[in-house]
Amino acid sequence: MKVLGIVVEYNPFHNGHLYHLNSAREIVKPDYVVAVMSGSFCQRGEPAIIDKFSRAHIALLNGVDVVFELPFVYATQDAGGFAKGAVWLLERSNVITDIAFGSESANIDFLTKIATVMIDQPEPFPRFMKEELKKGHSFPNARKYALLKYFELTKELSPKEVLRIEKSNDILGVEYIKSLKELKSKIKVHVIKRVGAEDKDESFGGKFSSATSIRKLIIHGDWDKVTQAVPETSLKIIARELNEGRGPITLQQLEEIALAKLRLMGREELQRLYGFSEGIDLRFVECASKFGELDNFLSCVKAKRFTMSKIRRLLLYSLFNISQQFLSKCNELGPQYLRVLGFNTKGRQLLSVIKRKSTIPVLSVCSLYRKVLKKVIKDKTGRFVVDPNLFEKQLLLDIQSTAIHSLLFPNKSERSAQRDFHIPPIIIE
Amino acid sequence: MKVLGIVVEYNPFHNGHLYHLNSAREIVKPDYVVAVMSGSFCQRGEPAIIDKFSRAHIALLNGVDVVFELPFVYATQDAGGFAKGAVWLLERSNVITDIAFGSESANIDFLTKIATVMIDQPEPFPRFMKEELKKGHSFPNARKYALLKYFELTKELSPKEVLRIEKSNDILGVEYIKSLKELKSKIKVHVIKRVGAEDKDESFGGKFSSATSIRKLIIHGDWDKVTQAVPETSLKIIARELNEGRGPITLQQLEEIALAKLRLMGREELQRLYGFSEGIDLRFVECASKFGELDNFLSCVKAKRFTMSKIRRLLLYSLFNISQQFLSKCNELGPQYLRVLGFNTKGRQLLSVIKRKSTIPVLSVCSLYRKVLKKVIKDKTGRFVVDPNLFEKQLLLDIQSTAIHSLLFPNKSERSAQRDFHIPPIIIE
Repeated sequence: MKVLGIVVEYNPFHNGHLYHLNSAREIVKPDYVVAVMSGSFCQRGEPAIIDKFSRAHIALLNGVDVVFELPFVYATQDAGGFAKGAVWLLERSNVITDIAFGSESANIDFLTKIATVMIDQPEPFPRFMKEELKKGHSFPNARKYALLKYFELTKELSPKEVLRIEKSNDILGVEYIKSLKELKSKIKVHVIKRVGAEDKDESFGGKFSSATSIRKLIIHGDWDKVTQAVPETSLKIIARELNEGRGPITLQQLEEIALAKLRLMGREELQRLYGFSEGIDLRFVECASKFGELDNFLSCVKAKRFTMSKIRRLLLYSLFNISQQFLSKCNELGPQYLRVLGFNTKGRQLLSVIKRKSTIPVLSVCSLYRKVLKKVIKDKTGRFVVDPNLFEKQLLLDIQSTAIHSLLFPNKSERSAQRDFHIPPIIIE
Repeated sequence: MKVLGIVVEYNPFHNGHLYHLNSAREIVKPDYVVAVMSGSFCQRGEPAIIDKFSRAHIALLNGVDVVFELPFVYATQDAGGFAKGAVWLLERSNVITDIAFGSESANIDFLTKIATVMIDQPEPFPRFMKEELKKGHSFPNARKYALLKYFELTKELSPKEVLRIEKSNDILGVEYIKSLKELKSKIKVHVIKRVGAEDKDESFGGKFSSATSIRKLIIHGDWDKVTQAVPETSLKIIARELNEGRGPITLQQLEEIALAKLRLMGREELQRLYGFSEGIDLRFVECASKFGELDNFLSCVKAKRFTMSKIRRLLLYSLFNISQQFLSKCNELGPQYLRVLGFNTKGRQLLSVIKRKSTIPVLSVCSLYRKVLKKVIKDKTGRFVVDPNLFEKQLLLDIQSTAIHSLLFPNKSERSAQRDFHIPPIIIE
């Protein structure tokens, strides 16, 4: 049995995603496709433009058999934490045989070479890394310069090749490979050459436009262009969500909630959270005090050593109280459950296999999570690797972040915080 | 030297307030008038419609000589805590000789009789009180029924007289007298017969309209009517504030901030806060989870035993994390500083007297509070009664609540959280 795993955000699902899915299918020829997808907030540190249930629905309509939610704590980490959480979750389902990801270079050798350096940390790479960070570069930039120096010595890769990891999907690709190696996973890796625009590209690129540019078009109501860039199934569900007042959701809408939270927080409280080191805690406090506008706040905080995505993620950490201790434990122990957002008829069969084989429990009905946890605790087979306390904390965070996401819905009657309890998995027969 | 103290909210300053001020002046004939005024949030559990500096300015323009800020922790308590904080602050200035307050009954004997019962708790009054609370009445209603029963026995007051304490100013009046008695204060009490509408009256009443109805008119932009109900000085400053995008501020604008805070809080966290007993914590959690609209949330929480004002105040406690422990300490130790919002030339003279005589420090420039605190700690005269830790906590809360108030300004460029540090006391020469 071949089961293909993919890691996605589908924010929103577009033609590039469909191309990737179909290409991966052609290469792997899997019996099943499983997607692990970000929930209510994404890796750029922003709320998803429409909710996770609708995005899972679109995925199923386009041929994914099972959609699991990537817990918030991984979905909103940097490329390393994101990739690790997602790959680990797939690994723990215990059925995935292949993983495919999009890549600008589509060169698995190149990505593996870099991943190997990052895992093995052969001298003088760690020293180069330290030097570059000291110069005040952001982590991704420091890594790029350190790799350039390192491969200039070893001659394994040319500068031109190394510079490819400036591309967001290649960065993620390196992290997927690195995580699989660290987990000693037997999952086989495939890379799919990406088509069209880069993720962060903000300009409309026709049929293959970036998710960023498509979100912009949706916000501005430029439906002619959206229609060109997303499959019809995606368009229909996006339109339905907006029509019912459950979108579009943007970071802008978090402005007052996020700034109020910071104004009510002390610096000490902030310092207990993940990532608020190197004086960024003080910048957050001072900028939230100076500015009552999100854009001004973000510009005020921005420094050379931090990317804007990182700053947005830190803003989410401050809102959701993501402590250093909690995040470290999550990265040490991995995802604690397989939360099912949706499946089709084939997916139902696969899920019954996963339920027998996975090393973390499958959670289909969120409201029954205590029952599921009890069963895991009682289990005598030694199959599960779950930490009950961490399970609850990770899940509570998914539920809370969805409760905040829904609070941003334009239609106030849709703003229930209990969507996770009331909306069953999406089923496509 | 005669110094008249008054306790006000001026939300906003209207003709009834001016009448009260002038009547009190006529009766007392003071050398100076000192007002203690709510800051950014008021006793009804709502943000003030315009900021505290502008409201202090209007008070000065209408003849008040010094305006002190009533710390948030007292300004947002029930009538008992509000009155106690305000009277205690005036007492601690050590210069007030007279207090005047508005009253529907204007009958000081009646108010004193009730205050005495409430302090002395003569049997069977406490038993009546318990019985009425057990029936599920709100505190004010239980007190009213218990007093009716009590005075039916003693025949000191007729039922008709007792029922007067349904009026909000008489309730406050009883509390002022009670607090002064408890403090063994020598301040002389005067009552001024109120004219025009009751505070909570929502309909426009012409020249003497209630603050509630005037706020409504301001929000709806009905300036013809506002002009009839407030002095020109008040009108001008209200108009200036709205014109510059610093108002009108309403509870509605706190909707997402307040509900987000509740959705991110656990029930245990809520239980540590003041007032979340008798299952109201669970109601708060459940209603914030069900509803994403403030009005629906408030209706959902509303129960017979809680007035709507109390529920709004609890909402503020949840937003500002007002713990049981902190509030009890505040009510035990009293206000810790005299924060000057403004003064006129005469007020400047009085302030120099207060600075020599008060038992808590005068804070004219908020940013210098650490210096002021140091001086108090070093003081060898034994004159000060300050708890440095409580001083800081009370002040931080005033600053935080002002930072949240300003975050609600329509004009985003005015939303600085540092208004308390950047705006000096208003001075009218």
